[in-house]
Amino acid sequence: MSTRPVLTDEQASEPARQLFDEIRKVRETDFVNNFWRCLANDPGQATELWSRLQQVMKPGALDPLVKELIYIAVSTANSCGYCIHSHTAAARAKGMTSEQHSELLEVIAMASATNALANSLQVPVDDCFNAADAG
Amino acid sequence: MSTRPVLTDEQASEPARQLFDEIRKVRETDFVNNFWRCLANDPGQATELWSRLQQVMKPGALDPLVKELIYIAVSTANSCGYCIHSHTAAARAKGMTSEQHSELLEVIAMASATNALANSLQVPVDDCFNAADAG
Amino acid sequence: MSTRPVLTDEQASEPARQLFDEIRKVRETDFVNNFWRCLANDPGQATELWSRLQQVMKPGALDPLVKELIYIAVSTANSCGYCIHSHTAAARAKGMTSEQHSELLEVIAMASATNALANSLQVPVDDCFNAADAG
Amino acid sequence: MSTRPVLTDEQASEPARQLFDEIRKVRETDFVNNFWRCLANDPGQATELWSRLQQVMKPGALDPLVKELIYIAVSTANSCGYCIHSHTAAARAKGMTSEQHSELLEVIAMASATNALANSLQVPVDDCFNAADAG
Amino acid sequence: MSTRPVLTDEQASEPARQLFDEIRKVRETDFVNNFWRCLANDPGQATELWSRLQQVMKPGALDPLVKELIYIAVSTANSCGYCIHSHTAAARAKGMTSEQHSELLEVIAMASATNALANSLQVPVDDCFNAADAG
Amino acid sequence: MSTRPVLTDEQASEPARQLFDEIRKVRETDFVNNFWRCLANDPGQATELWSRLQQVMKPGALDPLVKELIYIAVSTANSCGYCIHSHTAAARAKGMTSEQHSELLEVIAMASATNALANSLQVPVDDCFNAADAG
Repeated sequence: MSTRPVLTDEQASEPARQLFDEIRKVRETDFVNNFWRCLANDPGQATELWSRLQQVMKPGALDPLVKELIYIAVSTANSCGYCIHSHTAAARAKGMTSEQHSELLEVIAMASATNALANSLQVPVDDCFNAADAG
Repeated sequence: MSTRPVLTDEQASEPARQLFDEIRKVRETDFVNNFWRCLANDPGQATELWSRLQQVMKPGALDPLVKELIYIAVSTANSCGYCIHSHTAAARAKGMTSEQHSELLEVIAMASATNALANSLQVPVDDCFNAADAG
Repeated sequence: MSTRPVLTDEQASEPARQLFDEIRKVRETDFVNNFWRCLANDPGQATELWSRLQQVMKPGALDPLVKELIYIAVSTANSCGYCIHSHTAAARAKGMTSEQHSELLEVIAMASATNALANSLQVPVDDCFNAADAG
Repeated sequence: MSTRPVLTDEQASEPARQLFDEIRKVRETDFVNNFWRCLANDPGQATELWSRLQQVMKPGALDPLVKELIYIAVSTANSCGYCIHSHTAAARAKGMTSEQHSELLEVIAMASATNALANSLQVPVDDCFNAADAG
Repeated sequence: MSTRPVLTDEQASEPARQLFDEIRKVRETDFVNNFWRCLANDPGQATELWSRLQQVMKPGALDPLVKELIYIAVSTANSCGYCIHSHTAAARAKGMTSEQHSELLEVIAMASATNALANSLQVPVDDCFNAADAG
Repeated sequence: MSTRPVLTDEQASEPARQLFDEIRKVRETDFVNNFWRCLANDPGQATELWSRLQQVMKPGALDPLVKELIYIAVSTANSCGYCIHSHTAAARAKGMTSEQHSELLEVIAMASATNALANSLQVPVDDCFNAADAG
């Protein structure tokens, strides 16, 4: 069930099929996952997002695995089942060990608990946390 | 403004003061932030949480800075202003560079955008993401 | 799977069946969707909600399609799969075009991204946004 | 208080100042709001976002005021105070009347309530909502 | 700062003032809090909500203090600072003890942590939790 | 589908099996639900959480059924389908009546609606809600 059709290669428009081919080439696999097949109902939107995603997730000041862990953390807090699944698979493909997965879960759970406590207590932010002079 | 008093050292009970001293010793600073001063209205609860937090955030399969980045990501998605402030300060203290901060923001923004897209499209999870056999 | 039974016409109490009939009459279809069949375990609660929903969603200063788009936006951010599905179907029934759906998705994704950025940066609200004098 | 400095014109780097000038020109006002002053700590990130935001919010299949209403709805559900303030001001500048504001609030409140009900009841999605054949 | 004016008695329209008087009578205090002063920009909306709120929060199968605790729990998870403050004050006025407040915080924190774990693990719901036959 | 295997008794490690036995003994049933079977991929993490959960949910200043209602409220707002299901079942096992379930839903829906209104209006917190002197 989805709110827009999950396009097979046959149902996809020409620009959508070109995006699928690009995804296959970059990822070195014939598999194209449902997110892109669904987003490709608007091929321009899908193609632009794919391009930006490649930019954001590439190695930089943070390494790609760390970026995947951050992605999983956000997706968990936003309760996005699809992204939790796809980025946990991506993290595993980039070398996430079982120990790292356990620690990721522990930090996410701890942050969720203290977020709730700080929100429920409405703790005033300490002045020293202001970044006005952090440069 | 808070929903429980932010305790000064003078207002704190004996067990709360002992926790403040422990925090000072571990962090090597005289400063005790408002979260602990507010949570310490129940000293047992505060002390147990402090102890678990030390366990979760210590170096392990993930390094402490990566754990702070994950913490910021969760706190942002949960819209917890206090935790965003305190853990951004903690990440900076653990060496987060300005470039790393920028990339963290980019991954959080990208994840938030695609979470919304996948949720709004209700994309069905691909079978291959199932971890049943992941061990 | 649901936390209360999804009532068939046969299982429904007399007041629940009356609500189902009212829904059929207003919508000019024999179909009654699961939300009302599940909520009708408390017929009074379901009937009152149905009545208020008709009030809120009727044409007014905003037209009904715009109200459906707003409904989808909220449901997406709240990660409510059921409401995303039912209100996307409702928006389509009220004339939402494929182009409008694409732009809705773009605005939702952009808002989600900048919400995350503004929250993570804890940007202070500019004084000029205060509505004190907006009348 | 913010987690990165809110840059004055004097503190801003050359590319950040160019962005501020561009914002002033497009909006026909000397005022540059804090979101851009804070994001501009990474001028490349800020400039790219500004450019995309102009694309997303311009007139299209949906008119600019409707896009602002959707933006407010998402920001409310995500509890982003800054974006609620800035986009309510933007909606007013684009002609949102007091009656439209009231109806926006009513739809947001109704959607939030039924999201909670559908989530708490875990209502199964009706088959007929599937968009597989929606084209 | 608010997105609609917080109306003083002088600024309020006649129907808004009548609502303020009703609130004062029911609560037996001269104080009218900002939520109603802000919502009263649309007196009809405010009056209808006040009336429903009285219905929902009155003694029933659940006692009023338990209802306030549930209210605080939802408001915390939704990160609504205003409602956390006002309903914590209301709970205290209805007799919430310091011990009960501590336990409320513990349950909220535990639920938040396990919500995150179950979401991040995407645990499949056990068949036996289905309420199909719960009546 | 899950992001870590749901372990059968046969697949579970020795410490995981010991936890399953402990769960069976405490709950006086042979059934072990998927949450623990999935979390038990890290037996230490699962065992520690189980132990804390027993502490938090035991009778205290709040009775166990009230704690379950609070748990459902948080899980609903966090959109955690698994926890909504498991804790609604737990509440029913602890005596939640149909009337109590209806009132729980009403309070959750009302809180969700007013959270959205207060957030969208950005209502400033009244000074009198400050707990500075609440002791």
